[in-house]
Amino acid sequence: MISTARIMARCDALARHSEQPGGLTRVFLSPENRAASELVLGWMREAGMRAAVDAIGNVVGRYEAERTGAPCLMLGSHLDTVRDAGRYDGMLGVVTAIECVGALKGRRLPFAIECVGFGDEEGVRFGTTMLGSRAIAGALDPASLDARDANGVTVKDALRQFGLDPTRVRDVARRKGDVAAYAELHIEQGPVLESEGLPVGVVTAINGFSRLRATLTGQAGHAGTVPMGLRRDALAATAECVLALERIAKSDPELVGTVGRIEAKPGAINVIPGEVQFTIDIRAPRDELRRRAVSDVTARIEEIARTRNVGCRIETLQELGVAKCAAWLMQRFERAIAAEGIRVRMLPSGAGHDGMAMKTLTDIAMLFVRCKGGISHNPAESITEADAGVGARTLLRFIEDFELPA
Amino acid sequence: MISTARIMARCDALARHSEQPGGLTRVFLSPENRAASELVLGWMREAGMRAAVDAIGNVVGRYEAERTGAPCLMLGSHLDTVRDAGRYDGMLGVVTAIECVGALKGRRLPFAIECVGFGDEEGVRFGTTMLGSRAIAGALDPASLDARDANGVTVKDALRQFGLDPTRVRDVARRKGDVAAYAELHIEQGPVLESEGLPVGVVTAINGFSRLRATLTGQAGHAGTVPMGLRRDALAATAECVLALERIAKSDPELVGTVGRIEAKPGAINVIPGEVQFTIDIRAPRDELRRRAVSDVTARIEEIARTRNVGCRIETLQELGVAKCAAWLMQRFERAIAAEGIRVRMLPSGAGHDGMAMKTLTDIAMLFVRCKGGISHNPAESITEADAGVGARTLLRFIEDFELPA
Repeated sequence: MISTARIMARCDALARHSEQPGGLTRVFLSPENRAASELVLGWMREAGMRAAVDAIGNVVGRYEAERTGAPCLMLGSHLDTVRDAGRYDGMLGVVTAIECVGALKGRRLPFAIECVGFGDEEGVRFGTTMLGSRAIAGALDPASLDARDANGVTVKDALRQFGLDPTRVRDVARRKGDVAAYAELHIEQGPVLESEGLPVGVVTAINGFSRLRATLTGQAGHAGTVPMGLRRDALAATAECVLALERIAKSDPELVGTVGRIEAKPGAINVIPGEVQFTIDIRAPRDELRRRAVSDVTARIEEIARTRNVGCRIETLQELGVAKCAAWLMQRFERAIAAEGIRVRMLPSGAGHDGMAMKTLTDIAMLFVRCKGGISHNPAESITEADAGVGARTLLRFIEDFELPA
Repeated sequence: MISTARIMARCDALARHSEQPGGLTRVFLSPENRAASELVLGWMREAGMRAAVDAIGNVVGRYEAERTGAPCLMLGSHLDTVRDAGRYDGMLGVVTAIECVGALKGRRLPFAIECVGFGDEEGVRFGTTMLGSRAIAGALDPASLDARDANGVTVKDALRQFGLDPTRVRDVARRKGDVAAYAELHIEQGPVLESEGLPVGVVTAINGFSRLRATLTGQAGHAGTVPMGLRRDALAATAECVLALERIAKSDPELVGTVGRIEAKPGAINVIPGEVQFTIDIRAPRDELRRRAVSDVTARIEEIARTRNVGCRIETLQELGVAKCAAWLMQRFERAIAAEGIRVRMLPSGAGHDGMAMKTLTDIAMLFVRCKGGISHNPAESITEADAGVGARTLLRFIEDFELPA
């Protein structure tokens, strides 16, 4: 039997392992990481799994199949947090997976189940995200282990200090075929499910993203002496660009576009801005949709700049393609949700997740659980016990319905 | 005879008195101020004036009337500069006034002419503008003399160190009636005359200004997880406000409106801005036009905020009314320009000038001289010798045409 009270209590218990009291910050390979791992190892064993910390610091538990050594269904999420985090981002997925395995009460299935608490998804300490899942997926560039934290400590050093052997990280990689699928339960971190009154939803894809930086160069001038018709105001031009991005992003319900940073120079109350730099973040569950949006926005910015006689430079900072969820796995989540009598809502994940790394190894799927106000990466992150229950029951049905692909 | 070569050479000579070599910075009551004052005193005496530095540090020369003690036409501009200044802002007006008096070759008029090189117009050193003209106008708040520079030196201390007696500053104030009018020649500091191919123009008024600060408060959120339709993006709202201000300012050729400073928080590439603060600078040659613009912009911002469901706070930082130029003085400048065979262009002054202070004492007028690209407060500030000549001849005609009001 699934105990929602235990799920909530375990999220609370993990939240107590924080570098600062009265808040939650738990970064990769920290003493708090160790304490949290110990807790999770204990819960995994209690649920009937063999469990250990692997060479990259993931906590991995295996619930054996009817036939020893059969391929596994891998379930998991991450145990690290951002600074001043909420207690469900990551942890809820790990705790719920363990709860579901425990609910099998020793009943063996044609496939093994592995539960993983990834050590590093957020990338807070070393600026490198998804080290744990990339290692398991066999997609970890060894150079990532040379990344340093703010004190100059490398991932390798930190692994050694944690009691792990960095030369064995490559052994963490699984062979294709040994992991039949990867499924992750996670809070939505957005407001869609709440706005539609739904406790859970099926993720269609983890959105790809493009990050750009635009620099518009007009002519600074005295705010009092230059008539409107003779201005080349870089900020007025930028305002048009911000609204153009918004319009383009609104043109398709799957698109989002954000200007998060803006700087106007020289930045004096009585001076017309001569240069403005701003960032653009565009995400979509389909790469061609995102690429078209990037191209539309770029063209529009160039047109605005031309019309206003300001210079314009647009740089691409980062791009990552969509990680699509597998239809055969989504169907099982859909059936499981329908069996709960809940309308099935398919939605993309705007935020990045370990599935993006796991996708290089195996098919992936994700189940989203509603969170209050869509708020995440914040101490105010909140879910209801009832929703945690729907999520856990849905994941359990998914497991029970799962079959190894032919 | 007016010598345009001498005008240009004297601007060059003044520009050599700078706190930094290879540039021009000359602040109030500095050693460079003293050296520049000595030069100007010499030129005034050479032109037939009695000249001295007054108690607030203005260089004042008087060219006596036919009848000793008759009211004067006061001509002048300022001798202080901004940091890294150009060599014509202020100085051209002082040098040209002296040149015109010299061109009278001792011929006496029914009125005296006083030429003033104001000591402090820019307010760079003490953060107080127009100390010199306010003292002459009798409009100087004595508290201004307690203002301190970056080293903690008060205006009073600096006056004493300069060899002046701060207790005598009030004696600088002129009686109404003793100054029949104040007229200033100044570079335009804007691009209007250049764009219309005109060497000079008549100022209609020194614009009043309103300075506001707006704060829009939306909801910060993950750039990837919050769909466009559920956002309360403070920066997108601000973009609309920037364009609304531009549209309103463009609705009347006499209006200008500028957003010079903008700050978006939290300011991360992947976070929807939850709060944006920006400034608004609105100027116009008519107070009711400016007030209407302020009220229109405020209403529009509030409407945008309402529509987008973001909070909105608008504060007034500073307001100063228009200083209108006197019709009877403008007419004399118009006639003088027409006599040069030049189309008469009337235009407001967007920047502040000593006339704003002098206005409390007497009627004022200003003649603008074209400057290259409208650039000022910059080493690239530039005028042609030909334009300096047109300006000087126009000012001389203005003097010769001047009559004491009945």
